[in-house]
Amino acid sequence: MIVDIINKKRLGLELSYQELDYFFNGYLEGRVESYQMSSLLMAICIQGMTDEEIFALTKIFIDSGDVLDTSFVEGVKVDKHSTGGIGDKTTLIIAPIVASLGVPVVKLSGRGLGYTGGTLDKLESIPGFRVDLSEKEIIKQVRDISVVVSGQTANLVPMDKKVYALRDVTGTVSSIPLIASSIMSKKIASGADKILIDIKYGNGALLQTKEEGRKLGELMKRIGEVYHKEVRIILSDMNTPLGFAIGNSLEVLEAISVLKGEQTDTNLVDLCVDLSSEMVSMAKDISKRDALELVFSSISSGKAYDKFVSLVEYQGGDIDNILVSSKTKTIKAHKSGVIKSIDALALGKLSVYLGAGRCKEDDLIDPSVGILLSKKIGDEVSKGDVLATLYINDRGKASDIDNIFEIS
Amino acid sequence: MIVDIINKKRLGLELSYQELDYFFNGYLEGRVESYQMSSLLMAICIQGMTDEEIFALTKIFIDSGDVLDTSFVEGVKVDKHSTGGIGDKTTLIIAPIVASLGVPVVKLSGRGLGYTGGTLDKLESIPGFRVDLSEKEIIKQVRDISVVVSGQTANLVPMDKKVYALRDVTGTVSSIPLIASSIMSKKIASGADKILIDIKYGNGALLQTKEEGRKLGELMKRIGEVYHKEVRIILSDMNTPLGFAIGNSLEVLEAISVLKGEQTDTNLVDLCVDLSSEMVSMAKDISKRDALELVFSSISSGKAYDKFVSLVEYQGGDIDNILVSSKTKTIKAHKSGVIKSIDALALGKLSVYLGAGRCKEDDLIDPSVGILLSKKIGDEVSKGDVLATLYINDRGKASDIDNIFEIS
Repeated sequence: MIVDIINKKRLGLELSYQELDYFFNGYLEGRVESYQMSSLLMAICIQGMTDEEIFALTKIFIDSGDVLDTSFVEGVKVDKHSTGGIGDKTTLIIAPIVASLGVPVVKLSGRGLGYTGGTLDKLESIPGFRVDLSEKEIIKQVRDISVVVSGQTANLVPMDKKVYALRDVTGTVSSIPLIASSIMSKKIASGADKILIDIKYGNGALLQTKEEGRKLGELMKRIGEVYHKEVRIILSDMNTPLGFAIGNSLEVLEAISVLKGEQTDTNLVDLCVDLSSEMVSMAKDISKRDALELVFSSISSGKAYDKFVSLVEYQGGDIDNILVSSKTKTIKAHKSGVIKSIDALALGKLSVYLGAGRCKEDDLIDPSVGILLSKKIGDEVSKGDVLATLYINDRGKASDIDNIFEIS
Repeated sequence: MIVDIINKKRLGLELSYQELDYFFNGYLEGRVESYQMSSLLMAICIQGMTDEEIFALTKIFIDSGDVLDTSFVEGVKVDKHSTGGIGDKTTLIIAPIVASLGVPVVKLSGRGLGYTGGTLDKLESIPGFRVDLSEKEIIKQVRDISVVVSGQTANLVPMDKKVYALRDVTGTVSSIPLIASSIMSKKIASGADKILIDIKYGNGALLQTKEEGRKLGELMKRIGEVYHKEVRIILSDMNTPLGFAIGNSLEVLEAISVLKGEQTDTNLVDLCVDLSSEMVSMAKDISKRDALELVFSSISSGKAYDKFVSLVEYQGGDIDNILVSSKTKTIKAHKSGVIKSIDALALGKLSVYLGAGRCKEDDLIDPSVGILLSKKIGDEVSKGDVLATLYINDRGKASDIDNIFEIS
């Protein structure tokens, strides 16, 4: 039976709900071995899945754990998800903007794995900031200040946790059907009414091309339809890192500068404004144009930054003592010219080597290290100009830094 | 590194010798987990392998164990291999025919797994027959009577053993590159000069179509060229079982009847004559036509049967006391007409359920049970005619026997 199911998918045939249920729950319960699950996952990666199979798998994932009751949050619950990127501090910026406009935001975030950072790790670089709130604390906080960012409390989609850990070590991560059912099952189980997905594509993302991103987005919308949830998609380029900072403290400081209106006209600001106005548009059921105006006024009036300060204070953080390493090293231009590209994946790897991220799940991260870019794509540089500053400690290794900037 | 290799094959790219060596030896040594190996195997099943990859993998397989020194056998060493079928007792018939013509035969055989029986299991249904000969005994026997059939003594291709066991439970058996490197590595490691491969296709075989069989054959010839070994291929139909008997004692008895010349003009006899004359033609370097004449005369003169008797006696078997179960059950025609097909796979499964084969590696088999067909394809039958007799015991279950014969 188990091998028959694998063989069917190997041949590119469609699996029934019963077959998927038998196999995936068998894996969760230990009847299906991990080497059988990885074989099926690889067959799925290459042969794909029909919509019916993907809907079935999403339901099996959701049913494997709790579904959150979010009735304590008033009005329409809009949740945002990013597929993971290098230097992606958008949640830190979007949550206070949207909340400052009267839309409650309860963001249950995760930690970083691979080359992409996690929101919880970033917030913990603010001394004292607590991310392990109880359900009671979350409810009180959202009522008091409309915004909370914390780790997950409930047992949401345990099957995805187990399957994802296996995918990570078996080369079966880059499958559009598997990515879609993994993300959508978590969003639906966490009680969102409407879902905004920020899909990254490029060398620093799971998906390499915009076309793949578009396919994933269409698929997620179709899954949303099954559950009567509005899903909107934003496709964003991850060949270049978002903004200038990579590393936990550095990213929090950059988020603050964006909220204060000090950074404008960068890919980071553009994306944050775009995502915030989609969320506001969805929550208030107003046009994107009207929502955009609200978002700009929230930043320019200082309301967005004030909300961020409230968030940090409420969760015990000391915003004035964010620590950045005093030990630095610079990357300089080896010739004059124009910056053609900045390699996001290489920067992501470098930041992990410096100690800003984890290679394994239980690695300790150093919030004070990271990378601060001085230039962006299109900038003219002269030989010897500083392109980036590395904030380092005694443990981290800075290697392979020559291929990050393409100058021509 | 491990995941990078899997990802490369997932995308359909070619792996280098170094990458395959790192991965497969890593698996043998425990650095690569079984769930990673099964993921790569599935990617290979679907994406295929280039000839260069297949040559590399075959070499890696061979190098994982001993290579047999067969210099104790005089002349050209021709080895035969069948890819496994239902009711396939050809080795029992071919070995004595070929040996009776002065061509020494040292056949190191295996046991059955899946729905196909193993030569060693069949021979052990002869009371007293020993299949665990030492190398010394094998050498003496081939000098004395030119023929020996035994289990493997040396540590040949241990990597194939480990990989095959995993393929069996992960739906990764039906891959032409994997089948080719598995079989060819074993034949080359066992010291053959020339290799005859009997490739089965059809519903009772690993490969479903003649076209796939042809591809596998061409590939094996190309592997043979690398090692300067002549490889000949015979493609044989396995939609229908070979001969009339399935089950260990029953198959030995049928082999005896073929050797005595009592069975003629069946798919079993045709295949055995074909394979024997190819082997004789290869060993003696004579034409197939001349070899055919020799084979026919060996059977008609009784020399072939005499050689079989010598073989059985030399290895301690009592040819007069082969036991068949006295408990029987018949399958009868449910209507009149002509037999259109006889389902080899269904018969293979049935024989395993009856106790003639193994579901798991350590299952005990009952040599006395099996199936004896009374009709062959093309025979006219009347409603109620006996189509087959099942030889059963108290443990085995006979179920699903309605769909074996198609009558119209």
